[in-house]
Amino acid sequence: MSLPPNTAPPNTAHGRGYLAIPGPSVMPDAVLQAMHRASPNIYAGALIDMMPDLTRDLCRVARTQHDVAIYIGNGHAAWEAALSNTIAPGDRVLVPSSGHFAHGWADMAEGLGAQVDLLEFGKQSPFDVNRIADALQADTAHEIKAVLAVHVDTSSSIRNDIAAIRKAMDDVNHPALLMADCIASLGCDTFEMDAWGVDVMVTACQKGLMVPAGTSFVFFNDRAGAARAKMPRVSRYWDWVPRANPDGFWQYFNGTAPTHHLYGLRVALDMIHAEGMDQVWARHRRLARAIWAACDVWASKGGLRMNVADPAHRSTAVTSLRLDAPDGTRLRDWVEDNLGLTLGIGLGMGEGRESDAFFRFGHMGHVNGQMIMGLLGGVETGLCALDIEHGTGALDAAAKVIAGG
Amino acid sequence: MSLPPNTAPPNTAHGRGYLAIPGPSVMPDAVLQAMHRASPNIYAGALIDMMPDLTRDLCRVARTQHDVAIYIGNGHAAWEAALSNTIAPGDRVLVPSSGHFAHGWADMAEGLGAQVDLLEFGKQSPFDVNRIADALQADTAHEIKAVLAVHVDTSSSIRNDIAAIRKAMDDVNHPALLMADCIASLGCDTFEMDAWGVDVMVTACQKGLMVPAGTSFVFFNDRAGAARAKMPRVSRYWDWVPRANPDGFWQYFNGTAPTHHLYGLRVALDMIHAEGMDQVWARHRRLARAIWAACDVWASKGGLRMNVADPAHRSTAVTSLRLDAPDGTRLRDWVEDNLGLTLGIGLGMGEGRESDAFFRFGHMGHVNGQMIMGLLGGVETGLCALDIEHGTGALDAAAKVIAGG
Amino acid sequence: MSLPPNTAPPNTAHGRGYLAIPGPSVMPDAVLQAMHRASPNIYAGALIDMMPDLTRDLCRVARTQHDVAIYIGNGHAAWEAALSNTIAPGDRVLVPSSGHFAHGWADMAEGLGAQVDLLEFGKQSPFDVNRIADALQADTAHEIKAVLAVHVDTSSSIRNDIAAIRKAMDDVNHPALLMADCIASLGCDTFEMDAWGVDVMVTACQKGLMVPAGTSFVFFNDRAGAARAKMPRVSRYWDWVPRANPDGFWQYFNGTAPTHHLYGLRVALDMIHAEGMDQVWARHRRLARAIWAACDVWASKGGLRMNVADPAHRSTAVTSLRLDAPDGTRLRDWVEDNLGLTLGIGLGMGEGRESDAFFRFGHMGHVNGQMIMGLLGGVETGLCALDIEHGTGALDAAAKVIAGG
Amino acid sequence: MSLPPNTAPPNTAHGRGYLAIPGPSVMPDAVLQAMHRASPNIYAGALIDMMPDLTRDLCRVARTQHDVAIYIGNGHAAWEAALSNTIAPGDRVLVPSSGHFAHGWADMAEGLGAQVDLLEFGKQSPFDVNRIADALQADTAHEIKAVLAVHVDTSSSIRNDIAAIRKAMDDVNHPALLMADCIASLGCDTFEMDAWGVDVMVTACQKGLMVPAGTSFVFFNDRAGAARAKMPRVSRYWDWVPRANPDGFWQYFNGTAPTHHLYGLRVALDMIHAEGMDQVWARHRRLARAIWAACDVWASKGGLRMNVADPAHRSTAVTSLRLDAPDGTRLRDWVEDNLGLTLGIGLGMGEGRESDAFFRFGHMGHVNGQMIMGLLGGVETGLCALDIEHGTGALDAAAKVIAGG
Repeated sequence: MSLPPNTAPPNTAHGRGYLAIPGPSVMPDAVLQAMHRASPNIYAGALIDMMPDLTRDLCRVARTQHDVAIYIGNGHAAWEAALSNTIAPGDRVLVPSSGHFAHGWADMAEGLGAQVDLLEFGKQSPFDVNRIADALQADTAHEIKAVLAVHVDTSSSIRNDIAAIRKAMDDVNHPALLMADCIASLGCDTFEMDAWGVDVMVTACQKGLMVPAGTSFVFFNDRAGAARAKMPRVSRYWDWVPRANPDGFWQYFNGTAPTHHLYGLRVALDMIHAEGMDQVWARHRRLARAIWAACDVWASKGGLRMNVADPAHRSTAVTSLRLDAPDGTRLRDWVEDNLGLTLGIGLGMGEGRESDAFFRFGHMGHVNGQMIMGLLGGVETGLCALDIEHGTGALDAAAKVIAGG
Repeated sequence: MSLPPNTAPPNTAHGRGYLAIPGPSVMPDAVLQAMHRASPNIYAGALIDMMPDLTRDLCRVARTQHDVAIYIGNGHAAWEAALSNTIAPGDRVLVPSSGHFAHGWADMAEGLGAQVDLLEFGKQSPFDVNRIADALQADTAHEIKAVLAVHVDTSSSIRNDIAAIRKAMDDVNHPALLMADCIASLGCDTFEMDAWGVDVMVTACQKGLMVPAGTSFVFFNDRAGAARAKMPRVSRYWDWVPRANPDGFWQYFNGTAPTHHLYGLRVALDMIHAEGMDQVWARHRRLARAIWAACDVWASKGGLRMNVADPAHRSTAVTSLRLDAPDGTRLRDWVEDNLGLTLGIGLGMGEGRESDAFFRFGHMGHVNGQMIMGLLGGVETGLCALDIEHGTGALDAAAKVIAGG
Repeated sequence: MSLPPNTAPPNTAHGRGYLAIPGPSVMPDAVLQAMHRASPNIYAGALIDMMPDLTRDLCRVARTQHDVAIYIGNGHAAWEAALSNTIAPGDRVLVPSSGHFAHGWADMAEGLGAQVDLLEFGKQSPFDVNRIADALQADTAHEIKAVLAVHVDTSSSIRNDIAAIRKAMDDVNHPALLMADCIASLGCDTFEMDAWGVDVMVTACQKGLMVPAGTSFVFFNDRAGAARAKMPRVSRYWDWVPRANPDGFWQYFNGTAPTHHLYGLRVALDMIHAEGMDQVWARHRRLARAIWAACDVWASKGGLRMNVADPAHRSTAVTSLRLDAPDGTRLRDWVEDNLGLTLGIGLGMGEGRESDAFFRFGHMGHVNGQMIMGLLGGVETGLCALDIEHGTGALDAAAKVIAGG
Repeated sequence: MSLPPNTAPPNTAHGRGYLAIPGPSVMPDAVLQAMHRASPNIYAGALIDMMPDLTRDLCRVARTQHDVAIYIGNGHAAWEAALSNTIAPGDRVLVPSSGHFAHGWADMAEGLGAQVDLLEFGKQSPFDVNRIADALQADTAHEIKAVLAVHVDTSSSIRNDIAAIRKAMDDVNHPALLMADCIASLGCDTFEMDAWGVDVMVTACQKGLMVPAGTSFVFFNDRAGAARAKMPRVSRYWDWVPRANPDGFWQYFNGTAPTHHLYGLRVALDMIHAEGMDQVWARHRRLARAIWAACDVWASKGGLRMNVADPAHRSTAVTSLRLDAPDGTRLRDWVEDNLGLTLGIGLGMGEGRESDAFFRFGHMGHVNGQMIMGLLGGVETGLCALDIEHGTGALDAAAKVIAGG
């Protein structure tokens, strides 16, 4: 008996899709389950009662003993909220940039009337802390009210050394606030808000926190609280004071609560703390190292390159890559159409033809060994299908890392 | 054979709960279904493609040919968004009040630096349009930039005549914007944004729009757009210009989209338009009239009173009531604990002991005849159980109305 | 301001539907939640481990210390399973009938080759135990191997006295097995398998057990086990021996497990036992008494009648009623089309025009006070809309009962 | 900045689990969605109306113009149902065996009183059709009423040539029915009921049909129908006549319908036919060939072996493998505990220590390229972690096949 004739080329995308973009990330079933429910009473009952533990457990992820304000919103909302509580029109902020999103935050600041000093470090390298120190030292009048530092820039996948910025600020005795954007990194890359001396941290729920997009968070310490107290005016909606220390439930959210997101977040935080922050970070590191190992092999022949050369500066949540244009886009299209695998676009990494060179892997949150092997196996398949030159043995190399090598 | 001995008093709350508060409202299963899914790609694909129809269908609910900006947020966010696009610090706004939420919106305006002229009409009566006209006529310098009019105040259940305000404004040739808060009324009480001459309308998704709390909307016409164009500065996050006419998908939301809410909203809008706006409004009217008929009978003996005496000024989405304190709270507690029925608290209607007099029925959105009879039947049961004096035959009266009487 | 013109008669069915038929019943959200999950491993892990507690908690509902066999199937499957384990071709069974389903079970027995002695008691009266005793006494050769007694016949809503049958059997020293069909009654009407001397009990999951249709159960004691041991042949699929005392997980189900139903059942049993069997029964009694009170008032004028005159013989899970034909069907159609309320048809209660006289209320499982008031309020509304004569004050009467009267 | 110290070895299983056992299979989200709903009316409405298309679309998967009977049950139920309609006690059946499940079906037949002629072909080879032909030719009295042929034995992953059996039967003019078990193969391996001359086919829903376990199916043609007509007695529950051609909805299922499974099945059939049967089969072939390519490479060094040597006799739905005991079990345990990947146990392939040699991959139903690469990548990882000797380059070989090689 011979195999039946293969009457048509099959489409091997029919199956469970895998969204491997750098956010929104893959969510646990339990999170979606918790959100599939009738609306609760918002004036009394279980939802109200669960808030103290929820904010405590959010702070445990951020590694802070201080406060958190929850916003119905996305990461941009958290950006604007953090600035609205601390930066008055005319204030100056220093924004070192290692990618697209530093520019975005700077733009939010300008939109609020701040003067922005942008320090550009390109898209392949992390911040040079010395240049930040120089800029602060030059600011003898202490006009700079805050340094806005993106921990991991989702576009370039560069991870910056936030603790080193604090040290530089302290070394030059500059009183500006240190504000960190951990939207891409929280719950993936190691982050220690209090130990690293971060005054304000902003993040959102749809990446390492594994909840559908729609809530974001601003963590702040007493120094930031003091800055808030000196503001001439903070709008009611952005004001973090009642949100962080409400007299009534509605003040947590300045109005109606994001009921279903709170249920989802509760489950996600339970999962994160059941695993343990150290374990969560170590898992992301192990899986990222597997991805890097595969990329190193692929890059040994042909044009594939990781955007960040030095592993010490790579995020463990997202990897930005390039192929010779337009192969980045060709690869993304092929694996999505033929394998059910969706990769991230290259965001802000190039113009024109170059925009088809870059692509990204998201590996944040609810991600395990077999998923990463599926992601890498899918890419290998795409490289083969499209005859894009690449080194052989990448998957074996990745498997070895996950195996503990 | 006799019935077995009733060994313990049963708790008849074990069953399907009914949250009959004035928002969040009961949601269709299909909405929750649509939201139970993996996160989608936010850079290409079906989610992006569905936006034009979604905004069009939102505008069909608002009865406007103009623009809508979607915000991840609650009603308070929409309040602040509307003001942020049109009212500069120092500008004056006129806020007629017939309940708690007018004060809330006024407070948001003050938080943004506006000067607020509050016209108080108490909590039992709608706006007196003549007093609004007088206030505008007195403003010969046209310092008042907007009239902030709550269509239905969820706390008092008063429905104001928005078209009459427009007429008054036109009669005195005042150029202020007419801004309406339809958070409680949209998709329940008849509302015609364009026909009534409303320049800006704010609403949220968790009431008549039948979606979990978390998105809100600002609709605006060209006059409002012109006011926006003259603003010295609008923050990036609140700016409705790119949200209403985005170059890229992310601009609809100034960042990451509220992916799951969009899916839910799509289904809810499909249901609303399949029924038809006229039908939706007529259904709410019929059911509200049934509630009023029951209340009239109950009120014929004992202390139950509807807050709004004149049916012409009552919302068809929410009914505020009172009993002699503390019977309002006793009733709410009893029906929740014994019947699985949750009524709304009396929000901002009284202090101290009086706060236990008021309570509310929500009857907005996904609500039909058997639900309303269950709500009213539950209240009748509670009145009996607590020996609260009331007229007999209330449920029969309500049934007659729903039957078409 | 007057109310807007009512441009079209509204349809007040748009809202949450209420399926008030005598099974499938309304299910708790938590049950559906538990079933919304990926398939589990069926060879090791949590699913296997949960079986001992699951069967124990099933037996606690049945009030037996004996065995249970779980079948993927419906109530008919349980009927056939029970017979297949105990009745050989040619054996005689005695089937007293008080409704449609006694005939169904008798027919299953005939299909297996049994000889059926049917004792007909009509559709308005319970079994006359004396006639059963007479029939057994006449069977001096003990050819009758089992009495098949439907506890509650879902069609007629008659509840039979099972304990009295056992007493009658004992009084005449007849060795036949006593087999009870509790498909409609389990988890609603009081039932005590061991205390009442029932040898075999069959039921299914979609009524009082609150799980989607698809699993059924046969409980059996040692006497039934002894009868099984004497059978010349029992098919592998129906054999309850390995199902009740399996060596491996697959034997519980003779093959692949009904994975998702087991998760749903686990949650439903948790809810039942958290409430407590006495409480569950008392709740059903209280709610049934409210229904009867309303029906008594309705019946005081016009043609509505409960099928079972004596409350002592009524089920507390289902109520069969009639109106003058064709008003039963008219009523059902109207409340479904106009209120979102679905009543049960009159099953096997009449032919031709008479078939449009009967209808039924299901009030089993996940049912509380506000639901029942919605059901009764819907019926009142329908009676009014269709101008069907009926007594007034039915709903007030029901409310008083639920209130504790 | 160096990477933070890795304080604990991470567990890379935290993420989305992948159940890669040979059934139950991975289900589409849309199937689970369709099943997450309130129970429907079972006496009128949409559920009843959808049955004709549902049975037609089931038959399209089976490639038959004939009848189908749906059973609430598992594959074993379908086995017993098929036999109960065609094989009387004392009848003889011929059961060729290439694995565990042939014995299971034979046992069911014996349980029903049939005499079983078992032809054993071991666990590594398909049926030898000549031996079947010989057995039939020897049966000059035509005592053999049916040949029970497992198409794909899930335990051994052997695929048998069903059309060849028909040819052999015709060649020797034997009138027995040809009955095929397609539980593991339907919707995966090419199967043509009518074209191949199959009289009765049994299958279940939890594998290629992508629905939670709980329904099974018996397809039968007119020859089988004629055999049914001659049966002395068929039990009511198993009788396929009213199920295949019901007068009323309840007869489809001999009682209450498996409501939620029907909704799930509807969605699954829509997905299957949207893809197209040829495409579905081709996808499974492509993915199976990728698995085989990887296995060939692994097997080039060390002890890994596919159970079926000749690709022409391998199923494309399941692959049975072995390692030197106890490495099969070690591997399964490791990938489950460390990667979130669950492989199938070696069912009935060995006793004692040998039982820890075998394991299986399920690759049936909702399965695509990235999933298979995740499965294979997980196995590679496990082989590395456990130092189990194996050839290198397996994953690259698999990727090439999926890529179209």
